[in-house]
Parts: sequence; structure tokens; C-alpha cells
Amino acid sequence: MAKLSGTPYRSLSSISLPRPIRRVIPGVASAKHSFSTSSPRRQPSNVGNAGLAEEDVVIGPQANEPLTIEGIKARRAKAGKLVAPTASYSDSDMFKSSQAYDKPKARRWDHLLSQESLAREACVLKQAAKHLKKPGLISLGGGLPSAENFPFDGLSMRVPSPPNFSTVEEQDISMGKYDVARNQNGGVHDLSIALNYGQSIGSAQLLRWTTEHTELAHRPPYADWRCALTVGSTGALEQAIRMFCDRARGDAILTEEYSFSTALETAAPLGIKVFGIHMDAQGLLPESMDEILSNWDEASRGARKPTVLYTVPSGQNPTGATQGVQRRRDIYEVCQKHDVFIFEDEPYYFLQMQPYTSGPEETSPTPPATVEEFLGGLIPSILSIDTDGRVLRMDSFSKVLVPGSRLGWITASEQVVERYIRHAEVCSQGPSGLSQILVYKLVDETWGHDGFLQWLMHLRLEYTRRRNTILAACEKYLPRDLVSWVPPAAGMFLWLEVDHTQHPQASTRSILEIEEDIFKSCIDKGVLAIRGSWFRAEQDLPPSGLFFRTTFAAASEDDMARAIERFGEAVRESFFSS
Amino acid sequence: MAKLSGTPYRSLSSISLPRPIRRVIPGVASAKHSFSTSSPRRQPSNVGNAGLAEEDVVIGPQANEPLTIEGIKARRAKAGKLVAPTASYSDSDMFKSSQAYDKPKARRWDHLLSQESLAREACVLKQAAKHLKKPGLISLGGGLPSAENFPFDGLSMRVPSPPNFSTVEEQDISMGKYDVARNQNGGVHDLSIALNYGQSIGSAQLLRWTTEHTELAHRPPYADWRCALTVGSTGALEQAIRMFCDRARGDAILTEEYSFSTALETAAPLGIKVFGIHMDAQGLLPESMDEILSNWDEASRGARKPTVLYTVPSGQNPTGATQGVQRRRDIYEVCQKHDVFIFEDEPYYFLQMQPYTSGPEETSPTPPATVEEFLGGLIPSILSIDTDGRVLRMDSFSKVLVPGSRLGWITASEQVVERYIRHAEVCSQGPSGLSQILVYKLVDETWGHDGFLQWLMHLRLEYTRRRNTILAACEKYLPRDLVSWVPPAAGMFLWLEVDHTQHPQASTRSILEIEEDIFKSCIDKGVLAIRGSWFRAEQDLPPSGLFFRTTFAAASEDDMARAIERFGEAVRESFFSS
Repeated sequence: MAKLSGTPYRSLSSISLPRPIRRVIPGVASAKHSFSTSSPRRQPSNVGNAGLAEEDVVIGPQANEPLTIEGIKARRAKAGKLVAPTASYSDSDMFKSSQAYDKPKARRWDHLLSQESLAREACVLKQAAKHLKKPGLISLGGGLPSAENFPFDGLSMRVPSPPNFSTVEEQDISMGKYDVARNQNGGVHDLSIALNYGQSIGSAQLLRWTTEHTELAHRPPYADWRCALTVGSTGALEQAIRMFCDRARGDAILTEEYSFSTALETAAPLGIKVFGIHMDAQGLLPESMDEILSNWDEASRGARKPTVLYTVPSGQNPTGATQGVQRRRDIYEVCQKHDVFIFEDEPYYFLQMQPYTSGPEETSPTPPATVEEFLGGLIPSILSIDTDGRVLRMDSFSKVLVPGSRLGWITASEQVVERYIRHAEVCSQGPSGLSQILVYKLVDETWGHDGFLQWLMHLRLEYTRRRNTILAACEKYLPRDLVSWVPPAAGMFLWLEVDHTQHPQASTRSILEIEEDIFKSCIDKGVLAIRGSWFRAEQDLPPSGLFFRTTFAAASEDDMARAIERFGEAVRESFFSS
Repeated sequence: MAKLSGTPYRSLSSISLPRPIRRVIPGVASAKHSFSTSSPRRQPSNVGNAGLAEEDVVIGPQANEPLTIEGIKARRAKAGKLVAPTASYSDSDMFKSSQAYDKPKARRWDHLLSQESLAREACVLKQAAKHLKKPGLISLGGGLPSAENFPFDGLSMRVPSPPNFSTVEEQDISMGKYDVARNQNGGVHDLSIALNYGQSIGSAQLLRWTTEHTELAHRPPYADWRCALTVGSTGALEQAIRMFCDRARGDAILTEEYSFSTALETAAPLGIKVFGIHMDAQGLLPESMDEILSNWDEASRGARKPTVLYTVPSGQNPTGATQGVQRRRDIYEVCQKHDVFIFEDEPYYFLQMQPYTSGPEETSPTPPATVEEFLGGLIPSILSIDTDGRVLRMDSFSKVLVPGSRLGWITASEQVVERYIRHAEVCSQGPSGLSQILVYKLVDETWGHDGFLQWLMHLRLEYTRRRNTILAACEKYLPRDLVSWVPPAAGMFLWLEVDHTQHPQASTRSILEIEEDIFKSCIDKGVLAIRGSWFRAEQDLPPSGLFFRTTFAAASEDDMARAIERFGEAVRESFFSS
């Protein structure tokens, strides 16, 4: 496939070196005026508005520092303290670097949005909030309880510290109810704000961190990208499907041939058909996708030509496959060719591990030594090559902090994020304020961008060790002539393929029957591995092979080895005792 | 209207007196064997299963104690310590009293459920979890991260204590990562559990409290009621609408003539029409509802005869109206007559205030002295008269603890809750685990049922004082010949009616125009009050009067008086200067 031109493959130097200062005239999509300016794109409004609810304006203006962690710090210093009282409005434009605007705007997606999404209007009560800017105005408007009646007067958390994150170097981080008014504990966020109603896009405090982190890690190559906090990627995916897929229109989704079962279960009751794309060790095959789309027959498929691709590019669930950079570019190009919108689900993006070597440990590659090296060594996201703004990327704190936060974020074009928020306002109303303030205090005020990236480097080695443990057990205990696997480069899953063609009953029994036998035998022997057939995108098609999904995230390392031994016994028994 | 027979109007004695011990044979809906037994309905399984994910069994068996707080304590003592490791399955049947079963089962609602809801199947991965019960089994199944890698090693919160809840008598409550394994800090819940993935129905720990609280407050009069935690009532309502309303079927919802605008904005983009029912000082008029339904004309209405009522019975938003007990019975009877399902949205149920008297304070009625008196004095919920199981009740911690918890619960029949959970599994995945453990530690381990009810009694007086402040300001500053109101008995809203017929331009200008003038004048004078027309259920109909919604929850008491003074000036100006 032809190379895409101008895709910003990120290298260490492109992260840390300043670029000429350029700005887009707001509203002019492709203008590339190269004038230099130090004035912020939007007016700052660092005036306090304490006690006002559903408040409409809070801005930390961006300046023109280079795209580095130091640059973010300088930008923040220049902007002054973030002032974001109860239910403050904020958006990513308040927190992006000026470089972010030096690009064309995203395309519009009106032609793909669902009837439901297009029909959404802004909450009328939130519109009234614009009046709260008026000095001295007293609001009898929003039904927000007074913080006086919040029975949480203080919280504190014990957290590990960079760079070693050992339990002997922990810190206690406190937050009170009126820290902003009293200028205590950082004075930027407090319980009176976090525990009241907020905006569905999330608190300005955490949205700032998220926006900065996203720019640092992905540098989306169009001007009007934005982030919005989510209640996690499961919820974000459901909202995304409802935004882009219409039962009445016969809409359909493409995804990997073996795909995350919960994602499939999200689409099915909405009447949205899902079709699978063939895969290899790097995940979905762009050629297969192109072929499916080029030869789409609406009548025989029972659905319109798909307009959405759902993909997990790194450590795919269930196969563990990771798309290389060229693979991602090729997939993107096919999506451009057929005007397909992309849901990029990336919970495991930062669980990219050390390259696997089965030899002695001293031959292993050296881990990244600095956060720049770590970031520069990651496979670029599809978002980072998304010149059209045709990607809705889903990030999550579930795999890199804790699932129980029910907290993540999306990144997409301003239009897509705006439609997403209009829906969030009448469903989740945004993530828990308790989760938001605890995560904000950890990743922003305690660790900062640098500490968070060091935490990810720490996790990288944790997952590398766990993966190496399960692979060593596979090498030791599994019959290599019957079971094969690709060492995963990211995520938490190892996909084991059993060569069903060698099974003595291969000619008389189906793959599903043999799979069920092995599964039951595994349970008898004391190991739970998930049946590969459960992940088929098209459940009415026969499985293409015999697979089991295993995870190396959960069990202790001793248990993992025992479990793989049991799995090997179950396979041998099925092949040799039947 | 005829009285319903057998509605269990709750009195003090019916709460606290033991009833004869009766149990339903499981599976036999209306069997009423009156044998006495001390064996639990389901087998207890208080065997630890620490470290196992997606675990399937945890039971605190109910015994046969009377329905009192002491009875709950005795039942818990008999059941032994709750064992609920990571992602434990639980349901309300594990925590209800044996009395709960001495009733007929709910009706089935298959004929009302939407195509989407009926099509939902259980998550295949969660089905695999049943194998985790097997002793010694090692799971390579669920992709749950190991708690070792959770960067939260401890949390603590500072909370006020009953009965005075003053800031000088606060307690610090701590929770660690491995409290269950180490039997610390109560040993029932900890961060290793709360911060991992959980069941969408909520953690067993908080679901137990919620179930007990619901039975104490409402005693649903059918056997198979259950609770499920939610991400708040906004999200619960959206799920409920998607469960019961089908765009393709032309489904419609009835609600109060003036209704919560966000609820209306939830239904509209789904293509579900909403129709308003006339109201009086006690909220929606059952006669009006009966008339609408009896004379429904599908063609002229452009929708099927409504099968759902959405109502806020206590402190309705925006009117502040509270349905009395007979009103609730009459509404329920109309719903039975026309087979209408009820969404009972009750965020303000426990903000029922002291009766209003405008005289001197010493003539005010005495507040309830005990939690029994408090509970017994509340207007019974519609759930408490719901013999058919046709109510989906929504409760929320937003107004009684903090909105930022994004935490609430529904109560409905087993069938309805099961369909609800199937949806939650692929959208919110349930509420934040951080919110759940903090609220659990507060309302269960720290306050208990008794302390929580005392907190509600404390809030009752807080809201009574705030309401009295705004009413005193109204009496002082508003032109009584032009502006009228009904003192609200519950909630946080005061609904002000302006007599537009006396306006000098009444014959030449519409209500909406005059409303807009007064609204703008209010902003000029420094007060935000919400325009009544924004809450019309049917936006295409002209408003029936000129109203403004004000809240007494948010502003300080001094500010409230100033704000009402400004509102009065704006009204006078519109009437006398135009």
C-alpha cells in the first residue's frame, strides 16, 4: 500500500524540540498563517467566582512553549493558577499548546451521525448558566445542594512515589472541603467543588491534565481536537455506537474477526450488525478490510456498507495482537478510501512491553531510561496519524491506575466531542467527582506528567515480567506441536492456538465440540481459560481455528505456571485419550 | 376514586412490630405456608475466596427477625461476616428479611419492554465466572488487573457524627488495600476489591445496606423486588426509557405538565414523545391522566397510547408539589386501569420538611424525635403501594449526601432489575468503586441505618430553615396581588406564579414574551430565576401560566433574601413601568 504522506511519526526529537509558532485563525479551517504571537487564543478569565454554580467560564490560557513536560509547566506558570469553581465549564482548547492550532481542522461527520445524535440539543438549564458570569448575580437557578451539607470534610490517600513506587516511600495526600477558598492543599481543587454537580465533560482540573497528556503522547495532527472525560471505555463505546450507528438505517460495524465480546454485546441489542476482518499476528488485515468494503453487497449482508471500524490496536482483546506503525497507517488509509469512521479503543496502549526474548535475561533489551525515551519508543496511535479527525480514541485509567475509578477519556474532533457531551449530560452526567479529585490529586498535583509516565514505565516492567512468566510456562508445559502462540507486545492477553487438524476426531467433530471438551477438561483440572469462539465477531460463522484466551494480568506468577501446566494436560488428554 | 384495598400504609407500629414468620416456597409465587423456620432461604457461603475474580457466590442469609433496625442487626449477626471478594455476584434476595417473601410475585412486563431490552443477553465472560466457585481453580479468565499494581494503598475520610453532625465531633475513617485479608478496619470491604472491576449491580457491601434501607423505608408489597446501584438517577432514567420505550413502536410517556427539563431532553432525541398531565398543588391530577388515556387518539397524538408514567412525587421539579398519600393511591389506580408502568423519580423523598407555618417559631410543629417517628411521618412512596411490581423507583445519594458520588439505586421487580443490569453491563458498568467504598464506609460501617436516618432528620431541619428563609423573603418582598406560591412540603424548589392576566400588555403580548422580559430584568438586577416555560412537557403548546422556578438549596440565606427582593423589583417593573 502507498505510504500516507506527512504522517507525524513521533520521534524523541519531535517531542522535545520547539517548533515555529503558528496559529490558525479560528473558524478558518485550513489557513496556515505563520505569524508569531504570544497572545492566547482565548481570553483568560482567572477571576474567582466561588460559590457560583453551573458557571460558564474558566480559562487557563495557553502560551507558546514547546511540546515538552517543561513546556507544559511553563505554560501553566504563565497562565496563573487555574480557577475552576463548582460546575465550571471548560474544554481542551483552554489547555492545548499553541502548536495544536497550526493544522487544518477536522472534517465534519454530519453524514455519519445517527438520527438520535443529530437530534440532541443542549440542556436548557445549562444554557442559563451563561448568566452566572455577571458579577454579583445571585443564582436561584440550578438545584445544586450547598456544600455545607456535604458529610465529607476531608479525604486523604496514601500513594507510592516515583521513581521506584515502593510501599516504603509512600506519601499521604490530603484534600479538604474548602481548600480553594482557604488556599490550602494546592488551592486548585477541593471537595466543595468535586462533590457537587459538575459538567459532563469533566472537571477543568482533570481535563487540563488529560488534554496535556494527550498532546504529549499523541499530538493529533488536526487543529480542533478535544478531550472529554468518560465513565470508562465501555460506556464511551456504547455512546459512540449510538452516535454513529442507526438501526433504522441498517448501519453496521467492522471489527477484528475475534473481538472483545462485551463490545459485540453492546452493538447487538441495538440492532447494529458487526462484521469481522481477517487478522494476522499484527491484528486486522487492511487488505481484507478493503476487500470487504469494496465488494459490499447490501442485500446479501443484510446491512448497509459499514461506516465504522471498531479496533483495539495495541494488545488486542482477545488475541493480544499489536498493530505496527505501518499497519496502522494502512488501516487508516483504507478508512479514508471508504470514508469509515474509527473507534480506537486503547486501554492497553501504555502496556506496551519490552521486546520478548526467550534467552537468558542478560540478553534482554534495556528498558527505556527516561520518559522521553519511553514515549518515543511507543508505537504511534492511530489518533497521531489522524489528519481527517476521523478517530474517536478511547483511553482509560482502568488498566493503568484502577478499574474502580470508572474513569477514562475520549479524544476526537470538536464536533464529535460536542455530540458526545450532549448525550453524556442526559445519561452518566460524567464520571464520579470522588474519582476525579482522587485521580487528579494523584496524576497532577502529586506525580505530575513526569511521575505518571514513570509510573507507566514501572507498569511496563511489571507486565513484561508477568508476560515472560506465562510464556516461560508455555514453553515448559505446552505441547509445541499442538499449541502455538505469538508473544504479545502489549496488553494482558495471550492467545493460544490449538491445532485442531491434528485432533484424532478432527474429521467427525466440529471445532466448537473439541473446544468445549478442552474447556471442560480445563475446569476439571483447575484452570479457567476463555473459549476463543466466544469472541467471534460473527457468531453465525464457524470458527476459523481453535483458540483459548488467557490473561497474565490477574493470577500470581506461581499460579500462572501451575495453570498453564493444567491447560497443557487438558490439551494432551483431548488429543491422546479420546 | 375508589380506595385501593390492602395498600400497606406504613405506620410507626407496622415498622417496628414483629409479624408472624412466613415464608414463600421459592418458585411458587403465591404459596403462603405459615410454617416457621430458622433456616435461611438460600445457602450461606461465607467461605473466603480471596483473590478470585468474577466470583459468583456470596450470601448473607436472612433470618426471621422483625423489620426494625435492631432486626437488621440481629439478622446480620446471625448471617456472620459478609464475605464478598473481588467482583462478587450479589442480589437483594441475599439481604431481604424473610417477611419480604410473604407476598405475591410481581407481574411480568414482557409486553411493555422494548425490542432493545428484550434482545439483551448476559455477558458471556460473566457466565464463565460461575466456574470460579470450584475450589483451587486458577483463573486465567477475566482481564482484571492485580491489586498489587493499584497506586492507592490507603484512603481516609473525615466525616461528622450523629446526632448533631457538627464539625467539632468528626471522625476519621480509614480503609486499606488488604483490610479483608488482614481483618483490619472492619474486614468486610477494602481497596483491593473496591478499586478492581465489580459487578454492574454494585458491590455486595453497599447493595446490602441499600436493600435493608429500602425495605425499612418502603416495604414493597410484592415478593420479588430487588435493588441495583446506579450512576445516579439521570443515567437510571435514560436506561429505563430505553427499556420501556421503542421509537419504532411509537411509544410515548406521560408526565407532569411542568416536568424536569433534563428528563424531557432525555426522551426527545430517542424519538419518544412526552405528554403533560394537568397539575394542582399536589402535583399531577389522576383524573386528568385517566381522561387522557381513556380518550387517547393515536392518529391525532402521533403516538401510541402511553405505557409509561414519569413522575416526581415529592418536591416535584420544577413545581415543588408533593403528592399526598391518597393522591399517590389514585395515580396508582389509574396506572393499573390502563396498564401503565411507573418511573418513580424520588431524589427529594427524604427532603420532606416540617409543615410550614408563617407564624412565630414557637408555634411550629415539633420535629420528629426518633428515627421511627421520622420514618413513620413520611408520605408513603408509590413503591410502598405497588402490589403489581409496576414501579421502577429511582433513589439517589445526590441530594442527601453528595451529587459528586454519581451514585444512586433503583428498586423494581426481579425481571425489571435483571433487564436493567444487562444494559448497565455494557454501558456504565456500574458506579465508581471509589464512590461505593466511601459511601459504604460512611452509611454502613460509620453511621449505620440509625445514623443515616438521623442525618436525614438533620437535613430535614436544614432544608426547613432554608425554605422558611425564602418564604419569609417572598412574604416580605413580593407583590402578593401579582405573585403567588404554595409553600413546598419537600425538595428544594419554590415555584412562583405571576398573574399575567393583570399585566398591562396581557392582551397584546404573549406569556412567553412577558416571561422573557421579567427574566432579562431579573438578570439586570442580579438574580437568576429559571423561566417556567422551559419545563413544559409539551413545548409546542402555549404555557398555561407565567411561572419562575427558584431554589432554596444553593444560595446563602442572606443572598436568598436579596435575590427575592430583586425578583420582586423585576416583576413590579414589568407590570408598572411598561
